[in-house]
Amino acid sequence: MNEEALFIASRDNPLVRELRKLAQDNHAYRKLGRVWLEGDHLCRAALLRGWRPATAVFGESAWPRWRGEFGGAAVRNVIVADKLLGEISSLESPSPMGFLVELPASGTVDPQGAAVVLDRVQDAGNVGSILRSAAAFGFAQVLAIKGTAALWSPKVLRAGMGAHFGLQLLEGLALEDIARLRVPVLATSSHGGELLHRAPMPWPCAWLLGHEGQGVSAELEALASQRIRIAQPGGEESLNVAAAAAICLHASGAAR
Amino acid sequence: MNEEALFIASRDNPLVRELRKLAQDNHAYRKLGRVWLEGDHLCRAALLRGWRPATAVFGESAWPRWRGEFGGAAVRNVIVADKLLGEISSLESPSPMGFLVELPASGTVDPQGAAVVLDRVQDAGNVGSILRSAAAFGFAQVLAIKGTAALWSPKVLRAGMGAHFGLQLLEGLALEDIARLRVPVLATSSHGGELLHRAPMPWPCAWLLGHEGQGVSAELEALASQRIRIAQPGGEESLNVAAAAAICLHASGAAR
Repeated sequence: MNEEALFIASRDNPLVRELRKLAQDNHAYRKLGRVWLEGDHLCRAALLRGWRPATAVFGESAWPRWRGEFGGAAVRNVIVADKLLGEISSLESPSPMGFLVELPASGTVDPQGAAVVLDRVQDAGNVGSILRSAAAFGFAQVLAIKGTAALWSPKVLRAGMGAHFGLQLLEGLALEDIARLRVPVLATSSHGGELLHRAPMPWPCAWLLGHEGQGVSAELEALASQRIRIAQPGGEESLNVAAAAAICLHASGAAR
Repeated sequence: MNEEALFIASRDNPLVRELRKLAQDNHAYRKLGRVWLEGDHLCRAALLRGWRPATAVFGESAWPRWRGEFGGAAVRNVIVADKLLGEISSLESPSPMGFLVELPASGTVDPQGAAVVLDRVQDAGNVGSILRSAAAFGFAQVLAIKGTAALWSPKVLRAGMGAHFGLQLLEGLALEDIARLRVPVLATSSHGGELLHRAPMPWPCAWLLGHEGQGVSAELEALASQRIRIAQPGGEESLNVAAAAAICLHASGAAR
């Protein structure tokens, strides 16, 4: 544990440049192998799950406030001029502290485990909300097919509210990775299949969730063993994908 | 019906100034009494529900494409220089056409009707998603307490995907407006109440949905006749408010 801190005021400092890249480029973490966790809520969630950050970063006026809680958490502390930290963030409401952590090593698909499959889901808010639902209802692995929003990008992290740290997240997958699942694979359908609130739900299972406009691809949908319809007595309006996901994951995960 | 069009190239034109205000100021529609519906999806949804726009606006290069579908829909057509229309939008992906419509007259609370109550829900994406779920599950009135994101703002409209046009939307309400409801009022609770997937759900009913961080205010929660808990076997993670809303509205609206 180390409660000392290094002060940085230059925007050309290599760490500051790295943070800027990680905060502003959604895919930079893949190349750099590190993730920027912005804000005390995310940092606290990571610590609760046993993560050990390499670097904790504080704005200079935030340091006195957060030193007590987070000052001993990381291998090293860095204090950055407030203005510099404000320039780093890409979020609507930037936070005055954050952790730089190692990107967890990518695992492999657990064929027997409950899973959520994301097929090119685009919106960061939707993806974050789905990760929260997955964590809440016990879907321990999230399998993202190539073209899905970057799971460790700042906006998905912000929307995920810490769900990331309790999940096994795999990205850039292809159809054949999903085909390895040995649990029942379920897909929602707007025109066929059993009604969700009447059908018995298998557990464990995997749910397929698709692109906001196009839904699940035909090839992926062919892997489904069951089609499920969400009754919409109010009319033909289609649900938001994260809303549909919440309903489906709750139906199979909560009642098990 | 009129398929003629007026061309406008000046950014100082009063209509262009009005559109800019409506597109960029979330609350401007309240003062101006008009709403800017951006994009063909929203415009189509409004027409399907029998809305009659005062003005249809097209970017000059979009006009040939959309004239056939939308050129006869409004009282008058306006073509705007592409650059001008791009400057108007506040959305991440601006659309090359839209309708200017009258803000519908505000109604009053239907004490006997199914309702969704929004208590200072902040995020436009969440509010839009909840409106879609409300429409899908037959909650015909949405009652927004003062402090909730502006329901007819561009981002909520975009996220609502047309749900607005099938709902009775009331804004700026106070506690006493909600107290007029005569249907069972339900609130989610993280630590008490019956489990949602086991409890019999009343219909019609009203659900209370609260602020992303603070939840439902204590005064409002005191109006609830029933507290309902969503089982979260995966752990303590809290659900996104729009995800929780989808689960609750589905449970009472779909199985009725």
